[in-house]
Amino acid sequence: MQFRQLGLIGCGLMGGSFALALRRAGLVERVVGFSASERSRARAQALGVIDALADSAAQAARGADLVLLAVPVGATQSTLQAIAPELAADALLMDVGSTKTDVVAAARATLGERLPCFVPAHPITGKEVAGIEHAEARLYDNCLTILTPLASCGDDQLGRARALWSALGCRLRELSPEAHDDAFAAVSHLPHLLAFAYVNGVVASPRDQDYLALAGPGFRDFSRIAASDPTVWRDILLANRAGVLAHVQSFGQALQQLQACMEAGDGPALQQLIERARATRSSWTLGGIDQDL
Amino acid sequence: MQFRQLGLIGCGLMGGSFALALRRAGLVERVVGFSASERSRARAQALGVIDALADSAAQAARGADLVLLAVPVGATQSTLQAIAPELAADALLMDVGSTKTDVVAAARATLGERLPCFVPAHPITGKEVAGIEHAEARLYDNCLTILTPLASCGDDQLGRARALWSALGCRLRELSPEAHDDAFAAVSHLPHLLAFAYVNGVVASPRDQDYLALAGPGFRDFSRIAASDPTVWRDILLANRAGVLAHVQSFGQALQQLQACMEAGDGPALQQLIERARATRSSWTLGGIDQDL
Repeated sequence: MQFRQLGLIGCGLMGGSFALALRRAGLVERVVGFSASERSRARAQALGVIDALADSAAQAARGADLVLLAVPVGATQSTLQAIAPELAADALLMDVGSTKTDVVAAARATLGERLPCFVPAHPITGKEVAGIEHAEARLYDNCLTILTPLASCGDDQLGRARALWSALGCRLRELSPEAHDDAFAAVSHLPHLLAFAYVNGVVASPRDQDYLALAGPGFRDFSRIAASDPTVWRDILLANRAGVLAHVQSFGQALQQLQACMEAGDGPALQQLIERARATRSSWTLGGIDQDL
Repeated sequence: MQFRQLGLIGCGLMGGSFALALRRAGLVERVVGFSASERSRARAQALGVIDALADSAAQAARGADLVLLAVPVGATQSTLQAIAPELAADALLMDVGSTKTDVVAAARATLGERLPCFVPAHPITGKEVAGIEHAEARLYDNCLTILTPLASCGDDQLGRARALWSALGCRLRELSPEAHDDAFAAVSHLPHLLAFAYVNGVVASPRDQDYLALAGPGFRDFSRIAASDPTVWRDILLANRAGVLAHVQSFGQALQQLQACMEAGDGPALQQLIERARATRSSWTLGGIDQDL
């Protein structure tokens, strides 16, 4: 499996890393990129991540046998609409968005007879820093990539999508868009929301600067994801809001239980609740693979 | 500054690492250890962390010129009571507890004329795994250690405490016990409580195993502290419950603001709240020192 031309739409951390990874694996001859941000366009060219700059998303898709959408999920529908007329019938079109129900709905609404080209993808990777200057060819190494193919998906496209992510070193799993969004509300979107709320709660205090100067490794790791890209996360939290808000409820109930034990001074019950969390977390490993936590 | 005999009370991660660090720095000749846990006692001896085993906390303190309490904070008062009669007048007595108001109150209630020996200490370090088998001589390297000395503290003891932690490679800061507990409620105790609640909320779902199999690096870092020692954290959350519950309120308000934006579909306001968290977290560095996040 070899691609002649990647049309890269969105030249940020995820898109830039995808282009670098594809090149490194020798899977693509030429990369034509477009980004809505002028700064990203200039950097993508300066860094040599793309071979040619397109003036629009449509132009980036023109003549490409592989098109990757790496834009905030809120921009998916308008972007798909713009590129649909340019897509070749045998092109493989993928996204890397963190939500899938909304992306699939956008594809159904816009792609028409090119719907079979589309294989929705979500590689579970990233960094807490945004921008193509942080892109790296190894970002997708050993990560889990979820595909949520539609029933109408072309066999050829699905086969090439699987082969591509495998060639980049990803493990693959296929889910329905709904099962995907429910699970990622629980394990990704809710933690981001809680980390944003936590940091904002600290900042709201008159002693915030003093607090931050005293914070240690626990704070560092717990709050790392609060430094994530605001545009990307605004879109994710809005696109998957029903799922996220449902999981906020479960979290709130678990917090209530802990608080009630603290208020009652009930040490044994408090210890039991902490033990439940500890047992779960200490037996968990990333992707089921033993590695340094 | 050189110590003849360390009386180590509590042979877990923190206490064991302290003994190893002291030895490595060439600051102590002999370590006599006691632990309430038979398993820890046996391992401390087997691993050579202690030179001799004491039968009780009192025996570990007898004849020591340096005594370190490294027990869950809930055990502080009974331990201080047990060792007070054995303390030499010129001994330096310290703890490593994560709360200070309760520890200082316990010292005032039990130490009598030996109160000047006591210098409350909180080194901001740790691991999400407990037990002496995880102890390491470098655990205290480059960490911040907070001292909360009492007005009655002996000048000599305070001087030796400062010199000791500095010799272990720690930065030092002195705070009142109240300022300490308020700050650590915000930057440490609340994150732990939220991480426990978060993991318990996930576990409460019928799809929990599926969720955990899909979780990625964001989950890994956000939930790492949920694997912390249940006894230690039960005691901390109870000892500092008023402070922690006050900070739960600030967190709850910040979460409410984010939820309201999601419910209203208000993208610009949501982005602004996320931007506030991102700006704070991305400009923060551990101990003010630039290093890899």
